[in-house]
Order: sequence, then structure tokens, then C-alpha cells
Amino acid sequence: MKQDLKNIAVLTSGGDAPGMNACIRAVIRTGIYHGKNMFGVMQGYQGLIDNNIIPMDARSVSNILHMGGTILKTARCLAFKEEAGMELAFKNLQEKEIDGLVVIGGDGTFTGAKRFGEKYNINVIGVPGTIDNDLSGSDFTLGYDTAINTVIEAIDKIRDTADSHDRLFFIEVMGRDSGCIALRTAVASGAEAVLLPERETSLKELITKLKAGASTKKSSSIVIVSEGNKYGGAYDIAKSVKRKFTHYDTKVTILGHLQRGGSPSGFDRILGSRLGYAAVNALIAGESMQMVGLYGNAIKLTSLEDALNTHNYKLESDLLEMTHVLSI
Amino acid sequence: MKQDLKNIAVLTSGGDAPGMNACIRAVIRTGIYHGKNMFGVMQGYQGLIDNNIIPMDARSVSNILHMGGTILKTARCLAFKEEAGMELAFKNLQEKEIDGLVVIGGDGTFTGAKRFGEKYNINVIGVPGTIDNDLSGSDFTLGYDTAINTVIEAIDKIRDTADSHDRLFFIEVMGRDSGCIALRTAVASGAEAVLLPERETSLKELITKLKAGASTKKSSSIVIVSEGNKYGGAYDIAKSVKRKFTHYDTKVTILGHLQRGGSPSGFDRILGSRLGYAAVNALIAGESMQMVGLYGNAIKLTSLEDALNTHNYKLESDLLEMTHVLSI
Amino acid sequence: MKQDLKNIAVLTSGGDAPGMNACIRAVIRTGIYHGKNMFGVMQGYQGLIDNNIIPMDARSVSNILHMGGTILKTARCLAFKEEAGMELAFKNLQEKEIDGLVVIGGDGTFTGAKRFGEKYNINVIGVPGTIDNDLSGSDFTLGYDTAINTVIEAIDKIRDTADSHDRLFFIEVMGRDSGCIALRTAVASGAEAVLLPERETSLKELITKLKAGASTKKSSSIVIVSEGNKYGGAYDIAKSVKRKFTHYDTKVTILGHLQRGGSPSGFDRILGSRLGYAAVNALIAGESMQMVGLYGNAIKLTSLEDALNTHNYKLESDLLEMTHVLSI
Amino acid sequence: MKQDLKNIAVLTSGGDAPGMNACIRAVIRTGIYHGKNMFGVMQGYQGLIDNNIIPMDARSVSNILHMGGTILKTARCLAFKEEAGMELAFKNLQEKEIDGLVVIGGDGTFTGAKRFGEKYNINVIGVPGTIDNDLSGSDFTLGYDTAINTVIEAIDKIRDTADSHDRLFFIEVMGRDSGCIALRTAVASGAEAVLLPERETSLKELITKLKAGASTKKSSSIVIVSEGNKYGGAYDIAKSVKRKFTHYDTKVTILGHLQRGGSPSGFDRILGSRLGYAAVNALIAGESMQMVGLYGNAIKLTSLEDALNTHNYKLESDLLEMTHVLSI
Repeated sequence: MKQDLKNIAVLTSGGDAPGMNACIRAVIRTGIYHGKNMFGVMQGYQGLIDNNIIPMDARSVSNILHMGGTILKTARCLAFKEEAGMELAFKNLQEKEIDGLVVIGGDGTFTGAKRFGEKYNINVIGVPGTIDNDLSGSDFTLGYDTAINTVIEAIDKIRDTADSHDRLFFIEVMGRDSGCIALRTAVASGAEAVLLPERETSLKELITKLKAGASTKKSSSIVIVSEGNKYGGAYDIAKSVKRKFTHYDTKVTILGHLQRGGSPSGFDRILGSRLGYAAVNALIAGESMQMVGLYGNAIKLTSLEDALNTHNYKLESDLLEMTHVLSI
Repeated sequence: MKQDLKNIAVLTSGGDAPGMNACIRAVIRTGIYHGKNMFGVMQGYQGLIDNNIIPMDARSVSNILHMGGTILKTARCLAFKEEAGMELAFKNLQEKEIDGLVVIGGDGTFTGAKRFGEKYNINVIGVPGTIDNDLSGSDFTLGYDTAINTVIEAIDKIRDTADSHDRLFFIEVMGRDSGCIALRTAVASGAEAVLLPERETSLKELITKLKAGASTKKSSSIVIVSEGNKYGGAYDIAKSVKRKFTHYDTKVTILGHLQRGGSPSGFDRILGSRLGYAAVNALIAGESMQMVGLYGNAIKLTSLEDALNTHNYKLESDLLEMTHVLSI
Repeated sequence: MKQDLKNIAVLTSGGDAPGMNACIRAVIRTGIYHGKNMFGVMQGYQGLIDNNIIPMDARSVSNILHMGGTILKTARCLAFKEEAGMELAFKNLQEKEIDGLVVIGGDGTFTGAKRFGEKYNINVIGVPGTIDNDLSGSDFTLGYDTAINTVIEAIDKIRDTADSHDRLFFIEVMGRDSGCIALRTAVASGAEAVLLPERETSLKELITKLKAGASTKKSSSIVIVSEGNKYGGAYDIAKSVKRKFTHYDTKVTILGHLQRGGSPSGFDRILGSRLGYAAVNALIAGESMQMVGLYGNAIKLTSLEDALNTHNYKLESDLLEMTHVLSI
Repeated sequence: MKQDLKNIAVLTSGGDAPGMNACIRAVIRTGIYHGKNMFGVMQGYQGLIDNNIIPMDARSVSNILHMGGTILKTARCLAFKEEAGMELAFKNLQEKEIDGLVVIGGDGTFTGAKRFGEKYNINVIGVPGTIDNDLSGSDFTLGYDTAINTVIEAIDKIRDTADSHDRLFFIEVMGRDSGCIALRTAVASGAEAVLLPERETSLKELITKLKAGASTKKSSSIVIVSEGNKYGGAYDIAKSVKRKFTHYDTKVTILGHLQRGGSPSGFDRILGSRLGYAAVNALIAGESMQMVGLYGNAIKLTSLEDALNTHNYKLESDLLEMTHVLSI
């Protein structure tokens, strides 16, 4: 691993997440504070290949801390999966004498970073930036907290109208392989039930639960559906339930991409700032091939390899138990 | 028409809308202030038939001004369309000597109110409460302003992620027969195009517009789709466009019922308060078969008949022109 | 007045207001749409004097529609009140052959615009941009609706804690000479009383009102205080009331400048867009020395002279009456 | 300590905090789920003395999860500090055979709980409910996350107007003895400086920092002031700074009690639910004189004695260092 880095670049890749801008700002300013030359790479790995690498000063990240999205943009990049693409990327970095790279993103981003860092002589630090919270090595990934707030604000509005009409709502949230958003928003919105990719819930069980609620005079019921559960999307489930349980008027909402946007919460602004700050400090300390993460209330390093090992990742099963008890 | 009313009831019917609670509060307190006995009817016309009519005092409407939905609930009621249902409803009102009725709702609600008021000896005043803004006789219906704010807050979040990815978003908003929400939110969110039930937009025209934007380096495009436009839902349109224009990654969001909920905006709280206040004052003045509405900055009365005449209602075509000019 | 304008500039002056950016965007894009060369003046009249006048294209106003503040900034400018300052300003405009000027601001801004337009050969159109709503000729000024929403969201939060503690809150809102914000927010937040610059409310009357509320078991009371009322700030009034009425624990909040900020509401984004669009169209039509305003649901022109005549401006006294009736 | 509890009561005391209602709901429903009889005590310890103790069922806590404040209300209670008050409180609990008590509040609340539990035969579990985050034994107290979001939303609005005017803002936030809110909001809002009760910042140092920012063309500066810092309130500090540094126009905002209110964030709803759930489970397990807290991502018990030991509590000094680096 390189020591005494002089030039550091940062990029965002994969799905964007609130707090990425806070993190970019922290990376740039921490680097400048320590006398490094700082660069931003546009559109993720694609920008490395296209040599879309821009010098950045402290003012270039003014007034972005509170903004959703990412000023560096992000893109899928198939070319970076090929040998040729990676080589071109490295050549472009070498030309600018960039010897440290901070990549902000999720598991796809880290997979690319790991292969790149293994092959080429550049120090790489990952920052977990994804609303899905599906990485090991960080209690919270960047954007997760904001996404939960966005979902529950939407559900609060839906609850108004659900209550006014004695309605049953199925609300589909993001999470193809991970039920993290679904589970936390179910607790936070007082949902009657939640369907997750990680757990099987039989329709029979669900209907029993809904009937019990109706019989105790619940004025409305809300079921959170993670997009990756085994029964298909919220529309399909609503149809299946409707066939066997007709007490309520049934409606469906698909929240979609608004879950990725919005001004980051305080939690995500602080997390993004801490992780960006820690990422640059790790590079300066000569670290590479690590992810910076939040563990309890402290920052720690995890190897990219361990971060990508989803077997380390566990659903908070105490919360699942709680959804049953608290929605009686 | 009756004079010297003693007992007044209020109900909400049809789809709920933010500001209904502000209006209920104003109705109850204005009546009490003038020495009337006030009643709330639960679940719209169904509550009249079921005799679900509850005496209400000033404290019964405390702390509801800021709440979405309606504390009186609302329901569809087929029985009230029948002679027998209306008769039972009138009997229940007579029993409690209720001689004035305020109905808050949209065109379906007013149609029922009109038939009821024509047939039975009770004074009826309507309040335009619907997010769709599709009644004549009021510049703004109750809930319209809040719904617009809700939609644009959602689009602001989507814009974050659209910009980060160079994406094209199709966003479906409410409005089966009326493009009011679509048109105003298109202006307010800087959408590149809008599809309305009232106007034909050819797909060819739409694609030309999107191509023009892409060529001037727009980083993202947003198209607002009113659910009642001629091409079907946002999913269908997105598919058709995608076939002929592949520059952007295309995504769809269906906002659904969250548009009906949420804490009412200042505008809707004031409007609900004014309309409720005016409705009771109209009843006290001996009026009946009228709707109270906002005209410019003043309250005026329109006959229920005229309010239901959609030929009087016009889309704000200057706004449509503006969406073209301002999204260059 | 000049015809066939070629070059148009826009500036914001005085206190900033949400919706100014929406208006700037509309001015720039409407001008470009009609083939004009467009310019932005930085920091209000100061930028005219300093020749801080920048060419703007359609992309220069991308992604600003939803932002609070003003990208053109604003400043107080004493020099523009002098002959020499105005002359320098005109020379700078002449140099760039700018023959049309859109000024967005409040009464101070318009006073300057009127003197400038009377003296020099340039067409001037004003846009009412101030949260105070204290101009004649427009039912709503730009930023007023957003400011009301900002205040009531703050009061909603305060109401939570007021209710939890049986407390009396005095909340000071902006409005040195105009009680518009105070009056509308009082209605929209269900305040028990409101103190305005335009009306005298005796402390005795206020205390009587608060006692009546306490005796009917109100769990909390909120009094809105316009900064320009005759008793001084909210702290002073709270102290005076406390001396004579000790039932509640008394607290004070000064909302201050957060009332000027925030993402504009849908209403203000649409209003800003319409007014900017109309301002440029007025210039193109050869108009000058006029203000564009919202009247009912239509745009109309008022001379700057009439707009500045505060005798035309009237407090909505029906709302004041309503605050008494609805807070029983 | 008692085993096999049958009847459990819950109360909120001290300053209210967002998430208290989520916690009350969890306490009531977890108890009912396990077959206990549940009671709510109105107005904190005062309600124990006044025998204002109400049986609660699962429906009595419907639709409160998302509400700020506390449905059980809270009050200061001097009488409970006296022997006689505590004895009366215990008699009232005995009468209803209540053998378990959950108290939600801050250090004052816990001090009372500790004395009560030491003296009388009743099992007591504390839940850390205060926006100040000044207890040991929980990384986050209930309401802290929401308060931070409330403050930064306010500062975001102020930043709009600060940027438009090249202004310097002093913003006073809550925290008489604890700078937690000030420190986290300083990071999350990109403040240029922060004044805390725990650390001395010389005015000279502050002015040097502000001058450095002005010289690098910062368009605005924001200083967060914790109410408990040594220089007095934000008004005093603003005056002192103004005397020596006149580059910016200086403004002050006192956020006050709006920091205590608002719908709880997702984080606080989940935290409140988990802590309430854990508190009842602890009582059922025979625990007493403990506080339930969040440690990392797990729930743990701390003795009330340790929770009250502020020597265990530490300011996050890495964040303080970060505010310097990131605001360059």
C-alpha cells in the first residue's frame, strides 16, 4: 500500500442515496485541510474511464451538505467490469498522479473497488452509501435513515385517508434482497404486518392477523411490502388478500424512487460527514481495501471483503417480533 | 326555506381532503357561537341512514385543525341514492329536530345534497371539499392546495435522483376527469411535459419535446401524467415512449393515495375555516341549496346546480402555455 | 416607453422571499423563448452600480425553481437613492444595451424602480416579492404563502409541547407595519388571540379572552404577536400578561428569519412563474412603470404608484372576526 | 423486587420529547400482550399524588405513534420531592394494586424514580426521554434525533436567506448543561462555529475563524450557540462579535420550544417502541431500579444510579474536531 498520498479522488456509484453530498464535502475538505490535492470523478466508474476527473477546492462543495442526490452523479458502468476498462481508468488516474480513491456506494460499487484495488497500485477506501442497509460492517449505511423518514412521512399521509375510510393499504417499499427498510418502517408507522424477502409469511397468517385487527375495531390497517418478498409486488398481494378478506376497501401505493431522494436527515448528514472524514484519514494513515463504517457510536474499518459478505449481515429479528406485539 | 334554525349537522362525504377537519371545526364553533345545537354525522350519508349522529361541543373539535383526513369519516353510500334511504335519513334528522345540514365533499356529494334538499324540508349548504378542484363556483376547492404541495415535495425528491442519473421520470398524479393537479404540479415542479384528460397531447409531440431537452443538455426530465389522460396510466406511456426514445433511463412513480393525506397547508386551513364559517352564516341567514366558494379573495354563494355544471369549469390554459415556455 | 426591446435584465432587491428563484427562472426563460438576450443583476441595485450584470441562458436557471432565497442575491443599496448612483447604474445598463428591467421586491424596491424609470429611458416592470403581503395590486405577494406555511409548521410543533404542559405561548412573527402574516397564521394555527400593528387590542381584552379559554378547559393557548404591534415584542407582552394571569406556564418564541427561507410552496412557485412570465410579456408589449399582480385567479397590471399606495391595502378584517369566533 | 407483576402503570415527566407517545403505546400494548392490566398516569408524578391514574387498553393508544408531545401530559411536581407526596403516591398505586411503574423522562425524573423505588415496594424501570441526550447508559435519548432534524430544517431555511444577503447568523439551540444538540446540529448544518457549555471557546478564536471564512469568500456564516455556554445567550454573543467584526450583517434566531415538538423521526419512533417494549419485558423479568437504553444497536440495562452519573457522559469530541476541519 502507498504511503504519503498526494492526490485523492472521490466518486459515487450505484443507486444514489441522501447524504452522499455530505460525504463528498467531507472528503474534499478533509483532504484539503491535510494539504492534499482533491479531485471529483463524474458519473462513477464511467468517469474514471472517460477521464471526467475534476480538481475540486473547498468552495466547490459549499452548500451541498443538505442536498439529496450526488453532485458527482452516478451511473452504471459495464466497461469497468472488463480488464480494458479498468486499465484505462488506472491510466487516467496515473496521469493525474492520483494515488488514493474514495468510492461511495453499495455492494456493486465495492465489488468493483475490490477488483480494482487488488490489481492496480492505488489505495482504495469504501464508504457504505445505499438506502438498503444491506452491507456488513456498518450499523447504518448512508441514506438509510433518510429513506425511513421519507417512507413514514408518506405512510402518515396515507394513514389519514385510511382512517377516514376504514381502509386496508398495501404499501410497497424498496428492498429487493433486503427487508431493512420494510421492517423499520413497519415499526415506525405502526403497520399491522410486514412482508420481507428474508422471511416467509403465509397469506393465511396475514389474513388471520388482519381479521383479528378488524374484530378489535381497528379503523384501518397498513401492510408494508418489501419489493423483494416471495409473493410478488404489492398489487399481487392485495389481489390475493382481497379474494379472502373483504372487510376493508383495499388500496395499493408504490412509493418508488422518491425513497432515494430528499434532503438528508441530521443523522445521515452527520454519518456522511463522519464517514468521509474517516475515509480520508484512513487513506492518509496508509490504509487500503477497507470500508469505513459506523459501529455503535464509533467509526471502524472493515475489509471490503468482509463488508461484501452478506452472511455477516442480519435482519433485526427483535424488531420483527415487535411488529406483532405492538400492532395488537 | 326554513328560517331561525336551531339544530345544525355537518357531514363529510366522498374522497377525504386535507382541510376537512379545519372546516368541521369552523362549522361546529360558528354554530355554537351563535347559540345553535351542533351535530356531527359519521361516515357521510351512511351515518344519516344509520342514525350515527352525535352532538358536538366546542371542545370536541379541539386540536383537529392541523390534521389530515376527517374525524367524521366518510364512506360511499349507495342506499342514499334510493328513495327509501333518503326518507330514513330525513326521519333521523327530524327526530333530532335538525333543520340545517352542511355537506363537505365533491360533485357526488353535491348531487346527493341537491336531491335531498329538493325533496325534504331541510336547509342544505355545500362546501367544496375535494383535492381535484373540479367544481364550478370556487377558485380553489378544499384540499387542492395541500395536494399540490404533497405532489411537488415528492417530485423534488425524485428530481434529486433523476438528476444524479440522467433519468426520465413519469409521475402519475390524481385526476380522473380533471387535469388541475397535473397542470399546477407541472408548473410548480418544472416538469418538461404534462398529459391531461382535457387536452390531447400526441406521443410524437411529447417525444419531440423530450428530444429537444436532451439535446440542450437537460440532466433529467420529468413528465406529469394525470391518471385520466387518454393514453392510460404512466406505465403504459413510459413503455410507448421508451420504444421510440432511448436516451434516458426511464422510471415510473404512482403517487396514489398519499395525495389525499397530510396536514393541510396554511391556505387550506384558512380556506376550510372560512368556508365552514360562511356555511353556517349562510344557514343562519336562511340560505339553502347553495355552495359557499372562494372567488378571488372573497367568499360567495353559488347554487348547487351551477356548482355541478362542469361546463362552467375551465382548465387554466395560460398555465398550460407556460409549461411549454418555461421548460425550454 | 421603448418598444421592441432586445435586452432584458432582472434583479432581486430588499428582503428575500421564497419564490424569487421561480420568478427569476420564468423571466429568463420567457425572454429567451421570445428571442431576447437576458441578464441577471447581482445584489440588487448595488449590482447595477457595480456593473455586476451577467448574461444568462436557459440552463443558468436550471434546478432553482424549488430553492429558497435568490441566486441573484439581494442587498440594501443607499447609493441608488442618490442621483450619482442612478446615473452610474443607467450608464452600465446602456453599455450592454439593456432596455428592459424586471425588479422583484417590496415597497422599498418599487420606490427605487419608480424614481429610476421616471428619470431614465428604460422600461421597468415590478414583481411583488415580499413575505409581508403589504402591497396594493396583488392579492398575494411572492413568498407570503410559504411564510405562512413555515410559521404554522413551527406553531404545530409548539402546540405539541404546549398541550403536554398546559402552557401559554407567545409567538412573534414578522410584520413591522403589516399584520398579514400574524392574522393568517392565527387563523391557520387556531391561535387564541392575535396582536396586530393595524388594530389595538387592549391587554385587558386579551387576558379576558385567555381566562375564558382556561375556564372551558383549553389545554393550551397560543397568542400570535406581530413584531409591529403597539405593546412591543412578544417578551414584553408575555411579561405584562404574566403579571395578571398566572394560570398557565408562559413561554415565548421569536421565529425570526427562518420565516424568509425554505423551499417555496406550490402556490409560490406557480405565482413566481406566472408573475415572471407576465412581467416579460408586459415588457414585450411595451409596458413600463407597472407592477404585475395576482387578482383573483388572473394576472393584472397596476401602476407602481398605485402599488405603493398603502391606503389601497386593507387587512382582511373578516379573518380577524373569525379568530374570535373559532377559538371559543 | 417483586415478581409476577399484574398491574403496570406508565408516566411521562419533565420536559416532553418526540417519541414519548410511541413509547407509551409500546408500554401499554406489550403489557396487554403479556396479560397485564395497564394504567396511564396523567401529568407525571403529580398524577400519582392526585390519583389521576387511568386504565388503558390497546385502542387507547391507537394513532399516537406519530404524534409529538405526550398524551399523558407532563408537569413539574414539587410535592413528589417531599415524603408526604411520595407516600400519597404509593397509597394510590397500592389501592389499584399497581406493582410496576415505567417512568419516561430525563435526569429530574430519574432522581425522583430512584428515591421512590428505594423507599417503596414497587418495581421501577426508567426510559430515557429527553431531547438533550445528557444521560449515561444510552447512545441516544428519546427525542434527540427529532430535535436535531427540527433544528437543521430551521437552519436550512435560515441558510437560504443568509446566502442571499451575505449574512452572519447566530442561532441559539437548547442545552443548558449539555452541548449535544448544538454539536450535532453544527456538523449537520455545516455551521462555521459552535459554542458549547462543555468547552470554552474564546471570542477571539471565534472571530479569527469568521474572518478566515470571509476572506475565502464564504457567502454566509452560521454560528450555533448552546443556551448554556459561558458568554450568555445568542443576543449577547452577537453583540460582542459585532463590535469587532463588521464584515457581515448580523442576525439572531432563538429557536426555543419548537425544538421539543414535532412528529417524531423514524429513528425516535423505533427507539421509543423498542425502549417501551424492553421496559415492560424488564419488569416482567423481575427487574427494577434500571434504565433501558440503546447501546450500539442493542438494548441494555443500566442502573438508575449509573444513568444519573454525568461523569459517565461524554461529549463526542471527534465531532467537535470535525466542525473545524469541515467548515474551512
